[in-house]
Amino acid sequence: MTAAPHAPQSSSSAPLGKHGPLDAEGFRRAGHALVDWIAEYRTEIASRHVAALPEPGSIRAMLPEHAPERGEPMAEILADLDRVVMPGIVHWQHPGWFAYFPANSSYESILGELASAGLGVQGMLWSTSPACTELEIHVLDWLVAAMGLPRRFLSSGSGGGVLQDTASSAALVALVAARERATNFHSDAHGLSAQGRAITCYTSDQAHSSIEKAVRIAGIGREFLRLIPADSKGAMRVDLLEQEILRDRALGHLPAFVCATVGTTGVNAIDPVVDIAALCKTHGLWLHVDAAMSGTALLCEEFRPLQEGAEFADSWCFNPHKWMPVNFDCDVLWIASRAELVKALSVLPEYLRNNATDSGCVVDYRDWQIPLGRRFRALKLWFVLRSFGLGGLRAMVREHVEMAQDFAAKVRAQPQLELVVEPPLNLVCLAHRAGDEATQCLIDRVNADGRFFVSHCRFHGKLVLRVSIGALATTRAHVAALATLLLTEAQRV
Amino acid sequence: MTAAPHAPQSSSSAPLGKHGPLDAEGFRRAGHALVDWIAEYRTEIASRHVAALPEPGSIRAMLPEHAPERGEPMAEILADLDRVVMPGIVHWQHPGWFAYFPANSSYESILGELASAGLGVQGMLWSTSPACTELEIHVLDWLVAAMGLPRRFLSSGSGGGVLQDTASSAALVALVAARERATNFHSDAHGLSAQGRAITCYTSDQAHSSIEKAVRIAGIGREFLRLIPADSKGAMRVDLLEQEILRDRALGHLPAFVCATVGTTGVNAIDPVVDIAALCKTHGLWLHVDAAMSGTALLCEEFRPLQEGAEFADSWCFNPHKWMPVNFDCDVLWIASRAELVKALSVLPEYLRNNATDSGCVVDYRDWQIPLGRRFRALKLWFVLRSFGLGGLRAMVREHVEMAQDFAAKVRAQPQLELVVEPPLNLVCLAHRAGDEATQCLIDRVNADGRFFVSHCRFHGKLVLRVSIGALATTRAHVAALATLLLTEAQRV
Repeated sequence: MTAAPHAPQSSSSAPLGKHGPLDAEGFRRAGHALVDWIAEYRTEIASRHVAALPEPGSIRAMLPEHAPERGEPMAEILADLDRVVMPGIVHWQHPGWFAYFPANSSYESILGELASAGLGVQGMLWSTSPACTELEIHVLDWLVAAMGLPRRFLSSGSGGGVLQDTASSAALVALVAARERATNFHSDAHGLSAQGRAITCYTSDQAHSSIEKAVRIAGIGREFLRLIPADSKGAMRVDLLEQEILRDRALGHLPAFVCATVGTTGVNAIDPVVDIAALCKTHGLWLHVDAAMSGTALLCEEFRPLQEGAEFADSWCFNPHKWMPVNFDCDVLWIASRAELVKALSVLPEYLRNNATDSGCVVDYRDWQIPLGRRFRALKLWFVLRSFGLGGLRAMVREHVEMAQDFAAKVRAQPQLELVVEPPLNLVCLAHRAGDEATQCLIDRVNADGRFFVSHCRFHGKLVLRVSIGALATTRAHVAALATLLLTEAQRV
Repeated sequence: MTAAPHAPQSSSSAPLGKHGPLDAEGFRRAGHALVDWIAEYRTEIASRHVAALPEPGSIRAMLPEHAPERGEPMAEILADLDRVVMPGIVHWQHPGWFAYFPANSSYESILGELASAGLGVQGMLWSTSPACTELEIHVLDWLVAAMGLPRRFLSSGSGGGVLQDTASSAALVALVAARERATNFHSDAHGLSAQGRAITCYTSDQAHSSIEKAVRIAGIGREFLRLIPADSKGAMRVDLLEQEILRDRALGHLPAFVCATVGTTGVNAIDPVVDIAALCKTHGLWLHVDAAMSGTALLCEEFRPLQEGAEFADSWCFNPHKWMPVNFDCDVLWIASRAELVKALSVLPEYLRNNATDSGCVVDYRDWQIPLGRRFRALKLWFVLRSFGLGGLRAMVREHVEMAQDFAAKVRAQPQLELVVEPPLNLVCLAHRAGDEATQCLIDRVNADGRFFVSHCRFHGKLVLRVSIGALATTRAHVAALATLLLTEAQRV
């Protein structure tokens, strides 16, 4: 390497504290303006087309070919949010958002994200900002109690919670821990090629795509993920799971990991976790539960059956960045035996050694996740839990579920439509009785209206129109308007 | 699953748009107050002790045992930033921050993060917010030109850039793509256990711990990561790399992946990428370059030698969230052949199918990363590039390098101290000539002062005091004060 140690071109004499166009006063002005812009955007969002797509490339076409040589005023940059960015935005915070899943970014969580960026600390080690680690531990313990989850997930025992970016990453780290437990940490040391036999994993054919992705990343291979068929409601067939495990044992494979889903992506089906857990216990498999979207419902007593079986799970995750109104990214992963996860992921180079770590008295979250670095994500969860209160969050969940159930009743009463499954919570899955073509036509007409956006899936071969009710801005009036449009169009299709 | 479909306890009649304590007006007020709080924090940050650690558990001890049942006023929550959070904060944005690496969270990037949270969109597919994808593609193309990187990384050819959370994740996805290319995608389909031979990987013994972590997560096994010894400057010994590759071939292994480091974590050593690339070409290995901290220097012509060899790299990453002042998390990964990465990571379930994806005309970034979901991270990079301008960023880099070189000259002139390596850029590594005990004593005294925070590493067995100069707030006066303290204490130790 021959880089010149000095920079002869430099002639800057300004102190670096003044670098960049923004000083503290400029930040205040721009920050206030941007806060107002966000408030204004959210206030008038209902007047926008939810999901009008531009021509591919048209956003890029508005941007200059090269980065500017000289700094530009922040006022111009913020103005480009309207000019350049907005034409390419699909409005996930819109009250007519019924597609995919709710991705709520509440005002409270925006403030939490802002505070985190403002502090700008790294939480990789306890010692690099103790508040970052301790607040996270504490708030995740709060949630164990608030959601009626088993005490084994509390940090006071051998378990604990950790924030991940997404349920995809949570599944991957859980899978790696499972792989290592099954091989007595031999694959961590010597790799899967030295195992001599295949590790096998199990999830339902309705599970999220991230499980397949994790299995492939972890070197296990797509072939050894058994996608267990679901029953008519979309839940995993435990009899078929058992058959597969026994068959794999007979073949000399090493069954290691089951992912049960509480609320599948397609139709929100709930796997029979208790029965799956019994099989996992018998055969010594790691049980991971993915409750990404529906986990939030556990805040309400009446939905606590959703956590049945959690007391036998080795890991359990849900996404506050979906239904609980914490902005992306924020996934909670609880683990029953944190030592197994840490052992599977820990690398301690000299440059990270410190007295607190050596004392063994603190948690270093770097060992609980794929990245080393981590930002102060617990702040936004803390802000939301405190500002809403558990009571406020419960009321939100109940309102969404009620709206979904009322909506489902209207669908049930419409002769041209059918409910593909009975909605357990806030996702209503329907189809046109005339078949897939009619359902597709219905999807297209609803989405062309501009006030609503719905998405689709296939269930046992049938095209399904999904109505996911959970956006923070959605009111009964929005759901009623969707129902009116949908029922009217259903007759015309 | 037996959850009651309805929620009898619910009696809420408030529209959900009004849910949560904060409405738009409350958000404006709290947002303005928080912006002011951040500006105030940054303005007076120099008066704080950089890294005073509380007793473990003392932050938690200030928090109530349970989450509140009723919502609390946002003013109280924000007040707890001072009361509860601040006592557990290590001040990474402090002008006396000379530890680990610069983790700059500029005002501009805070605003970008705020805008991203305010929009609250998902960028997993082009169609879920086209601006999110197109702005990212465009800004990463800007950086290829601005940093003098090879055209093969431009999106207009077969390559392209993508934002990851960290260099750890970038290394993992690059490694998985390398593993799949080496096995002709056989391990993706059938797992490593069916390979019959071990895949081997190579990096220097100075490389970041994330490389070992990635190798373990990917199922390759710690045993098959060859840590090639470094030379006296900390650079990988290419002769030993060649020996290892040849030895592994002779053993019947399958060499697949080399990670070269441009700026090691310990002493900022630069691996000889051109020579490593030649070996990779001869033996058909994937070359990944990790320039996490030092990559930002490429903005300056005089540091362009740092990119030598990039034209032969299959993947190349750096962290704008370190020296380039973009708040965490923000890693840029460029890839020469995006098709290989996408093939290794793609899973397309029905619920994500859409016309744009089917057309093949758009980029869906979900296939370039571990998670499915992604937030609008390009905004903060765009804000920083525009507000600073390339000229402003270059001036910042040059100022930091000059400060480091001036500081190194003072160390060189002090008989009790030695430079452990000649600093190529902004990291100065020194030791006390009296040995490790004296160096440790020096580290402790500097850190006890409260105005500065330095960290350590070991290099060829010797304890090293690292002075990483790159915090945005650092001025020549701060570096001069550190030098005065350090040189004085060096005589006393």
